[in-house]
Amino acid sequence: MTEIVKARFSIILSIYDYNFIHFIIIGSILIKKLQDKLHNEIPLTKLMNISIEEYNEKELITKAPLDININDKGTAFGGSLSTMTIISSWSMSWLISQELNIDSKNIVVIKNENSYKKPVTKDIYCYTIKPSIDEIEKVAKKLKEKGSASLKIKSSIIEDNETCVDFEGVYVIKV
Amino acid sequence: MTEIVKARFSIILSIYDYNFIHFIIIGSILIKKLQDKLHNEIPLTKLMNISIEEYNEKELITKAPLDININDKGTAFGGSLSTMTIISSWSMSWLISQELNIDSKNIVVIKNENSYKKPVTKDIYCYTIKPSIDEIEKVAKKLKEKGSASLKIKSSIIEDNETCVDFEGVYVIKV
Repeated sequence: MTEIVKARFSIILSIYDYNFIHFIIIGSILIKKLQDKLHNEIPLTKLMNISIEEYNEKELITKAPLDININDKGTAFGGSLSTMTIISSWSMSWLISQELNIDSKNIVVIKNENSYKKPVTKDIYCYTIKPSIDEIEKVAKKLKEKGSASLKIKSSIIEDNETCVDFEGVYVIKV
Repeated sequence: MTEIVKARFSIILSIYDYNFIHFIIIGSILIKKLQDKLHNEIPLTKLMNISIEEYNEKELITKAPLDININDKGTAFGGSLSTMTIISSWSMSWLISQELNIDSKNIVVIKNENSYKKPVTKDIYCYTIKPSIDEIEKVAKKLKEKGSASLKIKSSIIEDNETCVDFEGVYVIKV
């Protein structure tokens, strides 16, 4: 490897490292801020013991224990599953607004659809997909131009690699 | 009024009275049984302090206090509103199964849609429409023939005569 190639490789690596480390630090600050916000401002999320497990550039993973969220059949309660998906997709909208440096106090769900495919028999894990960079850029543009933007967010509750619940919600962010 | 007309009128009145009194007694026993079932078997309904307010031939009215079910904006949390509608429509399915003398242990929501039109600023009141006699008869026939039946139930959260949330869910009852 020539010295020039080595140097270029090193620059690319350090940019990658910087972005990675930057995401890890900012991400963990945001997770802490989000977790505190949910438990302090939305008491039901604390009663349900909803926790933020992971947030990366692809998804947000949230969790809730089965015991508090159980139903009469010994599986997860439909209301808990619905709440998990609604708050997880809301959280994704909030995280996006934070990353766009908009500390919005007004993010609301306006409609949602849930489809319950299989009962959940263990602790509930909810996977919320981060919208694409293109979609986020459109949101940023609308927020700048109009002061509000809507976005579709999808969450799924998955157990043993099988989808138990599918969710799609429409959220509105206002500056 | 002739004696015959008087007698007929008295019979009609007593049948009406009987049905009315029968509904009041059976209805209040069912409300108590439902309230106990929810709080004992689905802990989140107790944590949310959901109560059964009224059940008649037209609707089921349920309630939950705002304070436990509040969000970061000081209005009712979307997850609580969704849970209220899901469990209220589930309760209607359970009440129907009880009235058909089927003590089903297997009633589940398979899909639902929520539309959030206005924020809820006070205690949450949810109104769940009882399906028509025709619809209930179809359910009874399917349960008898196939051992399972699905039914659509609608709930609305109303405040000051205005609809804040509309819900439609599909439930499956199995014998």
